[in-house]
Amino acid sequence: MQLEFLGTGAGQPAKSRNVTAIALRLLDERNAVWLFDVGEGTQHQILRSNIRPRKVEKIFITHLHGDHIFGLPGFLSSRSFQGSDEHEPITIYGPKGIKRFIETSLSVSESHLTYPIEYVELTNEGTVFEDKTFAVEAMKLDHGITSYGYRIVEKDHAGELQVDKLKTMQIPSGPVYGKLKRGETVTLPDGRVVNGADFIGQPQKGRIVTILGDTRKTQNSVILGKNADVLVHESTYGKGEGKLARSHHHSTNLQAVEVAKQAGAKKLLLTHISARYVGKLAMELEKQAREEFENVHVVHDFEVIEIPFE
Amino acid sequence: MQLEFLGTGAGQPAKSRNVTAIALRLLDERNAVWLFDVGEGTQHQILRSNIRPRKVEKIFITHLHGDHIFGLPGFLSSRSFQGSDEHEPITIYGPKGIKRFIETSLSVSESHLTYPIEYVELTNEGTVFEDKTFAVEAMKLDHGITSYGYRIVEKDHAGELQVDKLKTMQIPSGPVYGKLKRGETVTLPDGRVVNGADFIGQPQKGRIVTILGDTRKTQNSVILGKNADVLVHESTYGKGEGKLARSHHHSTNLQAVEVAKQAGAKKLLLTHISARYVGKLAMELEKQAREEFENVHVVHDFEVIEIPFE
Ligand SMILES: [Zn+2]
Ligand SMILES: [Zn+2]
Repeated sequence: MQLEFLGTGAGQPAKSRNVTAIALRLLDERNAVWLFDVGEGTQHQILRSNIRPRKVEKIFITHLHGDHIFGLPGFLSSRSFQGSDEHEPITIYGPKGIKRFIETSLSVSESHLTYPIEYVELTNEGTVFEDKTFAVEAMKLDHGITSYGYRIVEKDHAGELQVDKLKTMQIPSGPVYGKLKRGETVTLPDGRVVNGADFIGQPQKGRIVTILGDTRKTQNSVILGKNADVLVHESTYGKGEGKLARSHHHSTNLQAVEVAKQAGAKKLLLTHISARYVGKLAMELEKQAREEFENVHVVHDFEVIEIPFE
Repeated sequence: MQLEFLGTGAGQPAKSRNVTAIALRLLDERNAVWLFDVGEGTQHQILRSNIRPRKVEKIFITHLHGDHIFGLPGFLSSRSFQGSDEHEPITIYGPKGIKRFIETSLSVSESHLTYPIEYVELTNEGTVFEDKTFAVEAMKLDHGITSYGYRIVEKDHAGELQVDKLKTMQIPSGPVYGKLKRGETVTLPDGRVVNGADFIGQPQKGRIVTILGDTRKTQNSVILGKNADVLVHESTYGKGEGKLARSHHHSTNLQAVEVAKQAGAKKLLLTHISARYVGKLAMELEKQAREEFENVHVVHDFEVIEIPFE
């Protein structure tokens, strides 16, 4: 599981940062990639990454500002022409209006996709997706326009059957392994009685990734980020710019740190960086934040962050 | 007057060519830039050029395929934040539907522009714009979807008053120069009678630039390109791919050459190059065309072509 930041800028593209798009790479976990926001030029960034568009299974939109959605029509159209498995469906989650934007764009341009789109327009807060391996919760933030934060919770992995240990005890593989894996007690042909529970490793706790849309500092960010392995938070402004941040419905780096600390998040990634902060100034944003919170980093375009198990 | 090619690719962005956008730079002529098509990422390309968004006075859209329009919402939104003279209006010409696409995009994203947009949705062929310095004619091409070609005709420049010649004859500057410039005959204080017509240089013939949307070979391309100084024609396919071009409603390089020859165009620029033609293969497209027409060139992204007077 990795986060790949395809666009880390705020508002408009800059030479060094494209507008927002974040890929959550779940290739090992479900052979899929999830996108969070698709600013203009996201398909161009993907062309320079090793993400394959047909692997994109779900798109979560935080809010409908142009710098977070104007890349959708192009990405969706181009996805029709890429990869062999052209009919792979895609599900798009986002605030009401996302369907109208996409459908109008595709209809006016007479784009006929080779795959179906399912829309999930969010109205209530809560679980927006859940299956055997992941659950995603959404809550509203504070950005003037409706803006959601997403908490992606990986289900715990059951302990693995310790095959090496079984082999050492000369228990031959076969249907018996399945029974042991399910924790059953089995009598072997040679009379030995073995308990599956003795051959199953520790369960692995699932990881939690929280990706917030643009927002002022708000309590829901803390709830969504509770004990997260990684919290991705905007940082449009820097230390001492709290008033400016508030009036533009954005956050400072230090407000993001407060959220991370209150939530008990393990790692804080700052993105949505204003073009005013280039080069050394972006480093300064990180440095200011690190004085208050050790595990913080200002991400840059194309950066890949591994999310390890505990 | 220059053409600057901001995107010269076909269908989807490629590493070496962005999707279509062409700037007609009229800085000397009217302190303005006109855009022809605005594919996704055009604002990113403009960021890497020396075009200032607020100088963009008019946008002409050839057709509504995504690779020609998906950059519009982003370009128009960002233009609000650039330059000091924020209220400079913009006029957008294009097929019916262009207004719905833009208005939906701006409304869903709650983008509030600092300047007005005037829409001219084309229904009939003919003159779509005319003032003292330029006229623009549009005609329909053959591309499945409604696709227009534009013929931009610069008005002839009146001859300049030959000030040096007047000075040599010791005719002092003053209101008399205005009269002479208008071709009047004037009696000077010293009694000499001078005829303005003797002091006015040759009129300069205006230039003609023809920019066609995607199309099969069609007679209207020849009409629009008649005696053009520069004809910009798509070349999605190469020699020997006529059938493929026809079935996809596109042209080959050699079909573009036929149009240029029949129209008597002075120079042919080939664009909308498929990603299949990279590097040497794009050179080959040009070479094949040059065997039939001397003054032909396959353009690349960011190339600037000067359009001289005759
Ligand atoms: Zn926003
Ligand atoms: Zn087209």
